[in-house]
Amino acid sequence: MDKLTFPPIDLRAEEDCQKTLDFLAKVPRSLGKLEELAVKLAGMTGGSRPAFARKSVVLFASDHAIARHGLSATGQEVTEIQVRNFLKGGGTINAFARNSKAELIVVDVGIKNELGDLPGLVNRKVMPGARDFSREAAMTRDEALRCIQTGIDMARREADKGTSLLAAGEMGIGNTSPCSAMAAVFLGVPVRSVTGIGSGIDEETMERKIQLIEQGIAVNNPDPKDALDVLTKVGGPEIAAMMGLMIGGASLRIPCVVDGFIAGTAALAAVRMYPEVRNYLIGSHISVEPGHRLLMDHLGLETYFDFGLRLGEGTGAVLFFSVIDAAVRILSEMKTMRDIGLAR
Amino acid sequence: MDKLTFPPIDLRAEEDCQKTLDFLAKVPRSLGKLEELAVKLAGMTGGSRPAFARKSVVLFASDHAIARHGLSATGQEVTEIQVRNFLKGGGTINAFARNSKAELIVVDVGIKNELGDLPGLVNRKVMPGARDFSREAAMTRDEALRCIQTGIDMARREADKGTSLLAAGEMGIGNTSPCSAMAAVFLGVPVRSVTGIGSGIDEETMERKIQLIEQGIAVNNPDPKDALDVLTKVGGPEIAAMMGLMIGGASLRIPCVVDGFIAGTAALAAVRMYPEVRNYLIGSHISVEPGHRLLMDHLGLETYFDFGLRLGEGTGAVLFFSVIDAAVRILSEMKTMRDIGLAR
Repeated sequence: MDKLTFPPIDLRAEEDCQKTLDFLAKVPRSLGKLEELAVKLAGMTGGSRPAFARKSVVLFASDHAIARHGLSATGQEVTEIQVRNFLKGGGTINAFARNSKAELIVVDVGIKNELGDLPGLVNRKVMPGARDFSREAAMTRDEALRCIQTGIDMARREADKGTSLLAAGEMGIGNTSPCSAMAAVFLGVPVRSVTGIGSGIDEETMERKIQLIEQGIAVNNPDPKDALDVLTKVGGPEIAAMMGLMIGGASLRIPCVVDGFIAGTAALAAVRMYPEVRNYLIGSHISVEPGHRLLMDHLGLETYFDFGLRLGEGTGAVLFFSVIDAAVRILSEMKTMRDIGLAR
Repeated sequence: MDKLTFPPIDLRAEEDCQKTLDFLAKVPRSLGKLEELAVKLAGMTGGSRPAFARKSVVLFASDHAIARHGLSATGQEVTEIQVRNFLKGGGTINAFARNSKAELIVVDVGIKNELGDLPGLVNRKVMPGARDFSREAAMTRDEALRCIQTGIDMARREADKGTSLLAAGEMGIGNTSPCSAMAAVFLGVPVRSVTGIGSGIDEETMERKIQLIEQGIAVNNPDPKDALDVLTKVGGPEIAAMMGLMIGGASLRIPCVVDGFIAGTAALAAVRMYPEVRNYLIGSHISVEPGHRLLMDHLGLETYFDFGLRLGEGTGAVLFFSVIDAAVRILSEMKTMRDIGLAR
């Protein structure tokens, strides 16, 4: 994995942004959290009037052998089916990306089958899905590092294309299980407290899910202080790649908007690996998964929507792009108090 | 004022919309409140796949003689100055409307000065501002009715232009005072509990504001059961016109998104006048003004953003347009389970 450095937040840009906001032709500070958001984005990007000409959601897809235990509402084949659907534009994330004028990039980092040369698919498959972590390590350390590197590479590739705002999305049937495992280990809390219905399962399946996750942690015994160890043993390829996107983005001053439970887990893992990444993360929504709020609170990331979303794909983050756009748009489009003859 | 009828909510369209949602290529019901929103909009518009090709925020501007008591952070002249700014595209509402791809229509319903023939301004001035309701009735009954009719006319005009989603915005220095008075009378609560800092005032000014509003209610003695009486005596022209927009919209099956405290007051007054209007209202954000939550709770309208906004102009409602667009976009743009080979 590449050696990385992370630029510090530009406090001068934050200050200049706040000053700009305070002189706009409106009641000072009347836009509350939107103004705080604009200021944060100024500090991250290093410009007092941030603007996001190209915004991208990079969606990483992978399978999980743990799904064979029937912990999900649908079979493992749905990962591939949905990826094919995304490539044709028919998924929720496609509609939301269009709505927020964002690019969607779909990356195969661990889909079970070979998909061949599909138009639009970025083939960076590291392995044919995570192994069943209830019995063995989900990945090798090398595989995990290669998945992280894939995310870093995608951040760079997007930067080269002019992207200045990112979100990490995912598709991976079964991926709430590794995330519950990772969250439980990182936060030192019972598996039950960070396990939810995922795509929609009944109580009995839920109990089996909790038991298998607990078993996976016992079998693998990951070291909570070693983020890579946790990721390797009970994580998965797309979680690693999402971490990489956040890490790579942070190294390039590109803010990454955090979606739901999977993205929140990746965010915490990335921050455990590189604490500076935290400076470049922005929360979006709070999901139905019970572990999500714990993760976001632990990260100290504010969330803005509470819409009961539990789809993943990056949908909540991309939906929030349009609020971010509104928050920064005023910086470049509004008249000042002086302009309209109300200089104070 | 025109005699109006209000079509009932189309329950069949709601049902069809929910069915459509349940067959889309995603985890069923995984979009939480967004799906509920789509279903509501189907019932309002009478189409199972609502879409809003033209969305408009109609901003009504008026002055208020009560402002002469210095209850606001700025002088009364700012109403006119900001209206001129909006017409040139330099206000927050302009930036937010562009961000949500919405039209902004600015209507003079009660600005103090004659603005003449300003490009883009809809001149429907009924009076040169509300009278000082701390001493006398803010309007005559006839003036109030003419202002409501202006709003109804604007809803029709927008419908003729193809608008299918509305928001009512406002600019009127001093207009939190009449709204606090109206809210206190309608809800039967102390003035203090529905009075806030408006555009930003200190504690001493706040006490004077509360006292003047209480005095206004005592002097005018409005009948809480007669919405028109309350509006006439302690309301104002733009509040009446906003009511009219909501009433006119409801009569045409056009949903109206409710912004902050001023819009919430207009919404309650409209519903007190025509209870059926409630069926066509959608909440957006919860503002900093303490009376806003009371109003929205009383109306039973869910709010979606809690961003600490306190600007008015229609900004919160227009910001929410993009979430509404996302919620309905999936209905027309997504593949179904069957399409992707996952028929259940």
